[in-house]
Amino acid sequence: MNITNDLICQNLSIRDGRLYMGEHDVMALARIYGTPLYVMDEDRIRDRCRTYLDAVREAFGTQGGVYYASKACSFKQIYRIMSDMGMGIDVVSPGEIATAVKAGFDMSKACYHSNNKTDEDIRYALSMGVGVLAVDSEDELRAISTIASDMGRVQDIYLRITPGIDPHTYSAVATGKVDSKFGSAIETGQAMAITSLALTLPSINLIGYHCHVGSQVFDSEVYLATAGVMLDFIKEVKDTLSYTISRLDLGGGYGVRYTSLDPSIDIRQNILKVATFIKDKVASLGIDMPAIYFEPGRSIVADSGLTLYTVGSLKRIPGYKNYVSVDGGMTDNPRYALYSSRYTLLNLSRLTQDRDMLCSVVGRCCESGDIIQPDVYMPSTTSRGDIVACLTTGAYNYSMASNYNRVARPPVVMLRGNEHYLAVKRESWDCLHDLDV
Amino acid sequence: MNITNDLICQNLSIRDGRLYMGEHDVMALARIYGTPLYVMDEDRIRDRCRTYLDAVREAFGTQGGVYYASKACSFKQIYRIMSDMGMGIDVVSPGEIATAVKAGFDMSKACYHSNNKTDEDIRYALSMGVGVLAVDSEDELRAISTIASDMGRVQDIYLRITPGIDPHTYSAVATGKVDSKFGSAIETGQAMAITSLALTLPSINLIGYHCHVGSQVFDSEVYLATAGVMLDFIKEVKDTLSYTISRLDLGGGYGVRYTSLDPSIDIRQNILKVATFIKDKVASLGIDMPAIYFEPGRSIVADSGLTLYTVGSLKRIPGYKNYVSVDGGMTDNPRYALYSSRYTLLNLSRLTQDRDMLCSVVGRCCESGDIIQPDVYMPSTTSRGDIVACLTTGAYNYSMASNYNRVARPPVVMLRGNEHYLAVKRESWDCLHDLDV
Repeated sequence: MNITNDLICQNLSIRDGRLYMGEHDVMALARIYGTPLYVMDEDRIRDRCRTYLDAVREAFGTQGGVYYASKACSFKQIYRIMSDMGMGIDVVSPGEIATAVKAGFDMSKACYHSNNKTDEDIRYALSMGVGVLAVDSEDELRAISTIASDMGRVQDIYLRITPGIDPHTYSAVATGKVDSKFGSAIETGQAMAITSLALTLPSINLIGYHCHVGSQVFDSEVYLATAGVMLDFIKEVKDTLSYTISRLDLGGGYGVRYTSLDPSIDIRQNILKVATFIKDKVASLGIDMPAIYFEPGRSIVADSGLTLYTVGSLKRIPGYKNYVSVDGGMTDNPRYALYSSRYTLLNLSRLTQDRDMLCSVVGRCCESGDIIQPDVYMPSTTSRGDIVACLTTGAYNYSMASNYNRVARPPVVMLRGNEHYLAVKRESWDCLHDLDV
Repeated sequence: MNITNDLICQNLSIRDGRLYMGEHDVMALARIYGTPLYVMDEDRIRDRCRTYLDAVREAFGTQGGVYYASKACSFKQIYRIMSDMGMGIDVVSPGEIATAVKAGFDMSKACYHSNNKTDEDIRYALSMGVGVLAVDSEDELRAISTIASDMGRVQDIYLRITPGIDPHTYSAVATGKVDSKFGSAIETGQAMAITSLALTLPSINLIGYHCHVGSQVFDSEVYLATAGVMLDFIKEVKDTLSYTISRLDLGGGYGVRYTSLDPSIDIRQNILKVATFIKDKVASLGIDMPAIYFEPGRSIVADSGLTLYTVGSLKRIPGYKNYVSVDGGMTDNPRYALYSSRYTLLNLSRLTQDRDMLCSVVGRCCESGDIIQPDVYMPSTTSRGDIVACLTTGAYNYSMASNYNRVARPPVVMLRGNEHYLAVKRESWDCLHDLDV
């Protein structure tokens, strides 16, 4: 095993036997900030935004845009970076809205998703000036109409549509199929029905359709198929209801490399391919070209991040397994516990040593399922005190972290050029009972 | 389906078409405190403690004890209740220790578990006067010895032993098997080796062995088998090292009813059966009777709790499924997402109506896997605004909650006699970015 194969993100390198992220010796960060520690590379995040923004501009000119799906990783500094880059944001809760507002984000460039917005949530979103609400159901559509009327305003909305495409990824994130808690299906006639309702209710302005077929999609044909179904539907709506929407939001889902076995995606090529397909299809259908939006989350932030842990013990059970336990686990990264997600791990204290021991890297929780990754190779000299890195943790790690076992959540340190700075502070043990009476 | 079959805890009843927990109309609590809301019955928790304490006293006299495994549900008021009941506590992190200390718990009656205690954790536990540290590995044993020496004290310890018993529950919580991240196995000779090491290292006092075979165990034979293996080992240690431990901690794991299909366990009968077995075995082995400890967590608090949600929408997808979405989900109860755990759900707004619709009750997160329970029956009239209860959520719900999607965690309301009071306050949307820089 050549270790350079495992440097799955281009901002990682090994120099003099040490792992670098950009210009930063990663082990030094563990010494300065302690472990467990989330490290995120701001420069890499900006690069990824630029890749999407440039591709969309090249493909669609000014008739398109990119909204960062902030559920992948949400804290104030992320929203400041998105604002600075000219990105829109996709938010999914009042908590994300509150964070973005606090960060000074222009909420007219936000789209609020969620399959369940309470009346209180809707009122808050409208009062904060959220640009677009992506409406999931007729119940919600009526609620938004009523609240917007009460507040004396007209709210721009998308309707979330399920195009019926199975992206052949794992079922927990396959959201574009007809049998889904999200949206209204074209196949069942419900997408047409909710469109019709939206056009009759007061105080809402239907500007577009939103769809999202799933996560970790590597096959570009999925987006062509989805765009095809959606454009056919737009044409059908035009013919049936004499209404043409002005925006089509294709959601997110582009796959990310978690291990050297995952392919790497050329975002620009993918988006240009989608654009060619859409332009041809629009011409053949004889409809107006809608503005095209994308909502990447994971593919913006995942490979900007890694997590640092300190080893507590190596336990060898002869005839069974070897366990390397670290000072974090399912509390800061529940993705193996939830989805059996694959990750790449490196023992940074012994980067130049042979990785000659098969082991499971496990967390500190009192739970057998608290596994960061089974069956990885580490040097057999791995010992208490070593620093281990789990790569590609920029998405759905900090954002999914819990206080299970009353374990405090790690801080987030960001790297920018030669600087590093704290973006989220470490939870103290006493933070944990702040709300206890 | 007779709804009374679904009142799986004896403190639940239906009067005049309304659900009562003890003396409290549950719907009224939703109106007062809002949803989502964790409700916990302090009287029921005290009953469960009493059941264990009485059974252990009847079975073992003063030579035994009950430690509440607080990872099941940890906040200040829980520790006050345990203190008041004369229970010990099992803690698994500095965060749980800090919470118990803040609640005024006498930490000499605490046992600190975890497969990974950092040096900082150990120092903190010792400085807080934690009674017993359950040691998981040789690495940790040496660290505790060194730190206790530095602090000029002798620390009582247990050694965690894996007896090699598979409780035939689901693998994520099967912790007593040889192939486990926890403890030292008897089968491999490692339990004897760590015992031998413990007897030679300074500043530690080996008082007992701890084992835990798993969770949701309904078969009492599992505890007899475990006790048998552990007593044989105690005899072997006596013969080999001329040392007799004074305590045997059999851990927790007694099963809880989540649905009407789960059996109900008579804790007293189970403990008396274990006691008879142990006494006979001790006599036949010719060893001293150790004090016997139990560490129930789930079976103390699970059925004291329920979670209240408000329905956001009912979505019927003809030919596919029906989805009832509520204002909580995997953020307050990740157990279906993690383990496919079963739960019982009731629409409290329509308790007297026929449950004639098969549906999935899903959460508010932007994730298809955010399911509280698939395939439950609800009235087909279920609508936005209805209050739904998920039963038996007192364990591993609040304690496992996250802020995924920046969803704020619900408060915990406790019931005592005719009173109700807030034990944990609701997180505000602005709490969520408190640590963001």
